[in-house]
Amino acid sequence: KVLYVLTQLCGLTMIVLVATWIGQHFGGLAGTSNPGVEFNWHPLFMTIGFIYLYGNSILIYRGFRTTRKKTLKLTHAGIHMGAFILTVIALKTVFDSHNLANPPIPNMYSLHSWLGLSAVIIFSLQYVAGFVAFLAPGLRENYRIAMMPLHIYFGLFGFVLAIASALMGITEKAIFAIKTPAYSTLPPAGVLANVIGVLYVVFGALVVYLATE
Amino acid sequence: KVLYVLTQLCGLTMIVLVATWIGQHFGGLAGTSNPGVEFNWHPLFMTIGFIYLYGNSILIYRGFRTTRKKTLKLTHAGIHMGAFILTVIALKTVFDSHNLANPPIPNMYSLHSWLGLSAVIIFSLQYVAGFVAFLAPGLRENYRIAMMPLHIYFGLFGFVLAIASALMGITEKAIFAIKTPAYSTLPPAGVLANVIGVLYVVFGALVVYLATE
Ligand code: HEM
Ligand code: HEM
Ligand code: HEM
Ligand code: HEM
Ligand SMILES: O=C1O[C@H]([C@@H](O)CO)C(O)=C1O
Repeated sequence: KVLYVLTQLCGLTMIVLVATWIGQHFGGLAGTSNPGVEFNWHPLFMTIGFIYLYGNSILIYRGFRTTRKKTLKLTHAGIHMGAFILTVIALKTVFDSHNLANPPIPNMYSLHSWLGLSAVIIFSLQYVAGFVAFLAPGLRENYRIAMMPLHIYFGLFGFVLAIASALMGITEKAIFAIKTPAYSTLPPAGVLANVIGVLYVVFGALVVYLATE
Repeated sequence: KVLYVLTQLCGLTMIVLVATWIGQHFGGLAGTSNPGVEFNWHPLFMTIGFIYLYGNSILIYRGFRTTRKKTLKLTHAGIHMGAFILTVIALKTVFDSHNLANPPIPNMYSLHSWLGLSAVIIFSLQYVAGFVAFLAPGLRENYRIAMMPLHIYFGLFGFVLAIASALMGITEKAIFAIKTPAYSTLPPAGVLANVIGVLYVVFGALVVYLATE
């Protein structure tokens, strides 16, 4: 219970700090007319959707043990859908920020983009599989039981991969965009980047601990 | 069993590719007289020590179930010691590559360095705690039993944090050092960097799966 509250505080702080980071140091938010700033939706919505909501949806079964199972399943599927929608917007804005730049920036070259997109694909497949196995009627009970360990393993694997992707993303952005003074001199924007990264790790460690204890 | 062999193949491929990467693209290995190239020991020894040996030591109890428990414990502690020694050398060479550079490069500014050093510290504390709890005589049996879940959780947490650190490290080096042509045009050195990163993730996922199934 204490750990659950701590997880929420950590998650919310993480979101506030990402908002502060892009607001104070990288020009806030913008639409397609300013692709360099439109980029900022990417870390913000990945953090809210693909990290905070993803983690919270995993914890639903732990935080609300007294609620009916059917309600929990619908909430779990619902929050995951919210996470997915924000993630798709976060992908759209980063691709825009590359394609609409002048000159355009190539797509899908980095380890960050390879592993990040892999995490999104694993998440999408997991969603369909989870839906078929646990919400749609018709599947035989022994199949459902056999699916559960895999569902949990790949659910947590995708979540940890999302966190690792976010750490690489923060690293890239800090190197690309913290220039005067440089990231290597640890200016406020650099310290903030590192603190956000540490919070991602603490949030992830707490979610995995609570989901497996 | 098949998965265990796959894990070893994946781990060895990972090491060979890191050696190829630094050998073909970044000038191989050197001593303190050439700090820019001395750096290359860092990814090589982190990969062999802090990823491959760390993972293998975790798997000792799974791969050799028929061996005596005492022998397994000594092997587990021994391989972890080997991992630790290579990790310390990997840290020395990267600090050298910063301090002996002209002009010197600042230390401990990046998220990679913060999380990487945290992983090393967690590993060191875990070593002492594991030694006291499971190898040294004298501790009451109920303490040993109470320690085990924490030992497993922090052992795997440190391992996953090491992998995440390596992913950030690869990302940094690719951005800093793949310049002509740039990383964003995905030249051979960039593709190799990304493949190494993918192998880190697959190796990590296999080790954690085998250790928790
Ligand atoms: C955790 C979930 C995340 C996922 C799944 C993800 C995914 C992606 C993908 C697929 C791209 C490639 C876009 C393209 O090639 O046009 C990308 C680019 C980028 N992302 Fe993320 N991202 C995540 C989080 C973050 C965060 C938190 C940051 C922090 C600022 C970030 C920074 C970047 C940067 C700088 C790029 C452009 C450089 C590159 O292509 O690697 N990302 N991301
Ligand atoms: C991307 C989508 C999904 C992810 C990442 C995911 C992830 C997870 C994880 C990590 C757990 C373990 C939680 C725990 O043990 O505390 C879990 C449990 C579960 N999930 Fe999902 N899930 C997804 C979609 C779905 C869907 C669509 C359903 C359909 C209702 C579903 C049904 C369940 C059920 C029934 C459990 C077991 C809860 C329990 O009894 O402990 N999941 N999920
Ligand atoms: C997985 C274990 C790893 C750990 C624990 C680790 C730890 C560290 C630490 C503590 C530093 C700071 C050194 C200083 O400030 O003088 C550092 C620097 C660096 N590491 Fe790693 N590292 C790891 C893996 C890697 C890998 C695989 C690469 C790939 C090339 C890499 C690339 C770098 C680079 C480029 C620097 C210098 C820039 C910076 O300070 O961030 N590291 N590493
Ligand atoms: C940094 C050092 C260490 C790390 C990261 C570490 C990590 C781990 C991990 C992850 C496991 C779970 C493996 C599994 O369940 O298959 C484990 C098990 C174990 N470790 Fe360690 N360990 C460390 C040091 C030690 C030391 C010094 C000892 C003293 C002998 C020790 C004794 C044990 C024992 C007895 C088990 C239980 C094996 C079992 O019965 O399943 N560990 N360790
Ligand atoms: O290889 C490296 O590249 C950077 C730096 O030289 C580029 O800014 C760094 O810290 C290294 O160790």
